[in-house]
Amino acid sequence: MPDVEFNINEAKNIINNFIRKIVHSANKQGVVLGLSGGLDSATCLYLAVDALNKNSVFPIILPYKESDPVNTEDALELVKKVGVKYKKLDITPIADTYLDSMKVRDKIRRGNFLARIRMAILYDFAKALNCLVMGSGNKTERLIGYTTLWGDMGCDLMPLGDIYKTQVRELASSLNIPEKILKKAPSADLWQGQTDEGELGLKYEDIDGILMMFFDMGWGREWIFAEGYSKEKIERVLQLYRSTEFKRRMPPYPSVTTPEE
Amino acid sequence: MPDVEFNINEAKNIINNFIRKIVHSANKQGVVLGLSGGLDSATCLYLAVDALNKNSVFPIILPYKESDPVNTEDALELVKKVGVKYKKLDITPIADTYLDSMKVRDKIRRGNFLARIRMAILYDFAKALNCLVMGSGNKTERLIGYTTLWGDMGCDLMPLGDIYKTQVRELASSLNIPEKILKKAPSADLWQGQTDEGELGLKYEDIDGILMMFFDMGWGREWIFAEGYSKEKIERVLQLYRSTEFKRRMPPYPSVTTPEE
Repeated sequence: MPDVEFNINEAKNIINNFIRKIVHSANKQGVVLGLSGGLDSATCLYLAVDALNKNSVFPIILPYKESDPVNTEDALELVKKVGVKYKKLDITPIADTYLDSMKVRDKIRRGNFLARIRMAILYDFAKALNCLVMGSGNKTERLIGYTTLWGDMGCDLMPLGDIYKTQVRELASSLNIPEKILKKAPSADLWQGQTDEGELGLKYEDIDGILMMFFDMGWGREWIFAEGYSKEKIERVLQLYRSTEFKRRMPPYPSVTTPEE
Repeated sequence: MPDVEFNINEAKNIINNFIRKIVHSANKQGVVLGLSGGLDSATCLYLAVDALNKNSVFPIILPYKESDPVNTEDALELVKKVGVKYKKLDITPIADTYLDSMKVRDKIRRGNFLARIRMAILYDFAKALNCLVMGSGNKTERLIGYTTLWGDMGCDLMPLGDIYKTQVRELASSLNIPEKILKKAPSADLWQGQTDEGELGLKYEDIDGILMMFFDMGWGREWIFAEGYSKEKIERVLQLYRSTEFKRRMPPYPSVTTPEE
């Protein structure tokens, strides 16, 4: 994999200033963030506490009946370790009022609905607490569109938005995050047994390698291929990127009244 | 009010092509849209049917217990008049499972939650029907941020995104939309008695006049003032614009790994 410069201390410093600047300029008390027990939201929790202070960070644990209970336990362990106030709310009654009555069985539809309900709840808590909503999406998810539109990507600030998944792990290692969270298989935990790499059919190491070469280093397909990545993998990653452009921009509208120069 | 060129037939034509292009290039069957009984969503319904066809447009009526029943009746009358299939789903059980259990009384919080739940439901219908979600936000709402972030603004295409509210009315008049919908006081209907102009403390005529002069004609405050708008109104409109910048962009993240040139 190519060596894109990634200085952990510099990254922490930039993120730290970013969080403070956004929260202060919005005149808010702090941030709420959904804490799943996974690596990305744990990293965001630690970064938020570093940037602000314990009393300005409100993790919200929002399990669904199909969420892995180990994740909820890990999230609870984290908030205790960090020493922040938190709130836990089982979203099953809310989500199932809809999912059951509409008999939604398709797991993608169910997963998307859960992600959007969580967003709606996080924003409600944020409003009540005069906070912003911190999202834990990373650069890999953003570029391959592995996210629910207006769901987990719906937030006010995204500290990891320019950090690849493999780099999040490096960053997290330096933050005193418990080993078992560092070692967990990445999963949106939107249905039982879901893992990101299983669903994507690609390893994050490969995805990140290809994305870095393509986007950060500006390499063409041939050069990436020469680094040992199969043509199939390269095309699949670039295809994920291209087909998810709509997830990286605000809704489009046609230019009608603006005068043409 | 200044005379910004607005050719209704040209606008209809541009919107028509836009809708078709977006739906076809996304390889979708058509659009779902939330139909409230208000002017903007009615206009979108008519535009969508013109651009696609009756079998490709699925209005979804999503009343809440506090919604004005007249609006729901008007929405039902509209779908019958247009002759499209529709779905009506009372969102009260879903919304109240959360709002009651959390004792949410603040009307802004309640309204935002409803808007986001509606978005989640519209996207679920869209996924089931292989459709896109059409949003009915207009240019005025967009510029003054009179919208719920990741709520009503959360959609896949926004045909009215460049049409001011006062122009939507003109456009609607030309579309054979029932008189009583054209004459309705604009309202998000998120709580009883809500009207846009009451909540904003400004008339759409004034807001649009100021926005057009500022954005489309590039006039300074003095020129707008000379047109007879009070300094207070001008400042209030521009302040609404400035303070809602975050509603017009994707969530911000700090640049960390991208190499600086």
